[in-house]
Amino acid sequence: MSRFWSKLAAGLSPYVPGEQPRGERLVKLNTNENPYPPAPGVLAAIAETSGSSLKRYPDPDSSELRAAFARREGLDAGQVFLGNGSDEVLAHAFQGLLKHDRPLAFPDISYSFYPVWSSLYDVPFTQVPLTSDFRVDVQAFPKDCGSIIVPNPNAPTGVLLGLDDIRQLLQAHADAVVVIDEAYIDFGGESATRLIPEYDNLLVVQTASKSRSLAGLRVGVAFGQEHLIEGLVRIKDSFNSYPMDVVSQQAMLASLADEQWFQDCCTRVIQTRERTAASMATLGFEVLPSAANFLFASHPQVAARDLFARLRERQIIVRYFDKTRISEFLRISIGTDEEMDALLGALEDILP
Amino acid sequence: MSRFWSKLAAGLSPYVPGEQPRGERLVKLNTNENPYPPAPGVLAAIAETSGSSLKRYPDPDSSELRAAFARREGLDAGQVFLGNGSDEVLAHAFQGLLKHDRPLAFPDISYSFYPVWSSLYDVPFTQVPLTSDFRVDVQAFPKDCGSIIVPNPNAPTGVLLGLDDIRQLLQAHADAVVVIDEAYIDFGGESATRLIPEYDNLLVVQTASKSRSLAGLRVGVAFGQEHLIEGLVRIKDSFNSYPMDVVSQQAMLASLADEQWFQDCCTRVIQTRERTAASMATLGFEVLPSAANFLFASHPQVAARDLFARLRERQIIVRYFDKTRISEFLRISIGTDEEMDALLGALEDILP
Repeated sequence: MSRFWSKLAAGLSPYVPGEQPRGERLVKLNTNENPYPPAPGVLAAIAETSGSSLKRYPDPDSSELRAAFARREGLDAGQVFLGNGSDEVLAHAFQGLLKHDRPLAFPDISYSFYPVWSSLYDVPFTQVPLTSDFRVDVQAFPKDCGSIIVPNPNAPTGVLLGLDDIRQLLQAHADAVVVIDEAYIDFGGESATRLIPEYDNLLVVQTASKSRSLAGLRVGVAFGQEHLIEGLVRIKDSFNSYPMDVVSQQAMLASLADEQWFQDCCTRVIQTRERTAASMATLGFEVLPSAANFLFASHPQVAARDLFARLRERQIIVRYFDKTRISEFLRISIGTDEEMDALLGALEDILP
Repeated sequence: MSRFWSKLAAGLSPYVPGEQPRGERLVKLNTNENPYPPAPGVLAAIAETSGSSLKRYPDPDSSELRAAFARREGLDAGQVFLGNGSDEVLAHAFQGLLKHDRPLAFPDISYSFYPVWSSLYDVPFTQVPLTSDFRVDVQAFPKDCGSIIVPNPNAPTGVLLGLDDIRQLLQAHADAVVVIDEAYIDFGGESATRLIPEYDNLLVVQTASKSRSLAGLRVGVAFGQEHLIEGLVRIKDSFNSYPMDVVSQQAMLASLADEQWFQDCCTRVIQTRERTAASMATLGFEVLPSAANFLFASHPQVAARDLFARLRERQIIVRYFDKTRISEFLRISIGTDEEMDALLGALEDILP
């Protein structure tokens, strides 16, 4: 605490990201990274970076990259917004689109950054309980909320909502912006981007960190009708005119250009997830049905906290949240088959 | 305007960056970029980027890079904060350190992003007039201001304050955070980082965009005592845990490793600036004394707006601000000697 901090800074409880240990040989299954590298064209694009492109400011509007994203989704470039990771995109959405007099509503168990952004921008919010089997209940969102944000699939549960449920949410709250946070959509869900022409209150946010193996680069994207994108642009241009560096823009273009590599990586992760979920069930775990690149699982005989610690002793790092309703679960990212075999072997060892 | 925007988004007047024209052959002297490329080691570091580093999240604390900046300044790593360009660092400073009940004070002619951030974070502010010869008058800052920000050298004037003036400001406002925004300090000024051990209210902000030829990469840095840095970290960790991508971190390390390249580029820019200023004076311009990589100049016979337009016709682009007190000035970035010769030739042509 310092007398020089603003009242806001003094009152914040910042987000705590998953551990990023350096220099240790670990099976790292704690931050939902992709076990496979990005498309070869990405590395080639980065290697081609020139001194003359570095010395100039990047295109502040990322026009070429927005057009490429738009083509892939069948949208216009004016319906695409880019940021320095989807966390930046979401932060701008909280400040520019989700902040109203009536509260923002989101699930009680969801991305733990949501309450942090609410606090950073003084956004009133209310939390909507998941059902007892950890599903998002779209009927349970209060009629009078001012805005809504839902991760789909949800994090850290991995449970998916279908587009029919999303439609219900959009129709029942036609006067509220509804953000669908699709960080994990490429691992088995259907994106809501196809609903954008129909719904003027829908914003879809995605990231290159997971399905495109680009966590190291920081690329996030939002899709929505022009008037919503303009709201985000107003915030961006009042915060940082050049959030996307020239290397990230070129690398992301190269990633979008290799659809086959992307699809293959997603398929491999999904196959490994299904195999791992089945093996864990055999070991007695309750494993929630996952459409993400992680599993959320609980064991009836061993406390999650103990499992976490005993895996860590074996150089296997997963994520444990010491929070109401989910303190008996572990979130386990899907790694390579070899990494998941190491996990399964360790669990067999640890379990009674 | 959209009914879905927050009141804040609806009320903003975003910053307008200098034009970044693409695909046109221009002498581009409008956004204070460095005419020389970054150190060769920077390109080598970027080319070495691996798929395994891209698929992982970057170090959220940029520990290695903070340590390298600290070593250069004779500070501790805990006295260094990094962001995605100095605009992001400054935005966090507005939200976390400069926002108080009493107003923030800054010069009436200075970086035009300051009023925008004030509006974005609802920071009350007051503007302190420059003297008639466009100097910052440190005596003129109100005794009861809550915080202060001053660019040094100032932008868009290029005029430098000495460290004695900065000391006066720090001492006269010992209860207020004083941010010295040193985007252009490497072109002839003396950095206030050396005052950090003495003053608990001093934050110094710098950028790699200008003197290190890395505008394309987005690296900004703040130096200050730990308690100020912690205030910025609280904001960052409530906004975006991973603002610095892995490529930028490695590239910036390589830039810091080549001090000679950096010094040589600065020296060349300074020499070209002095030669250009002398030639422009010969053409009848009033040229303010500049310690930056740009000149701020006015001609008694030709309106700045007309000069701007006629240079643009000749594919030479400079910056014109249609604002009180400075509407008769052009801000001209220092390019290569060839570019400045092209400018001088065009001016000779245009002037009566």
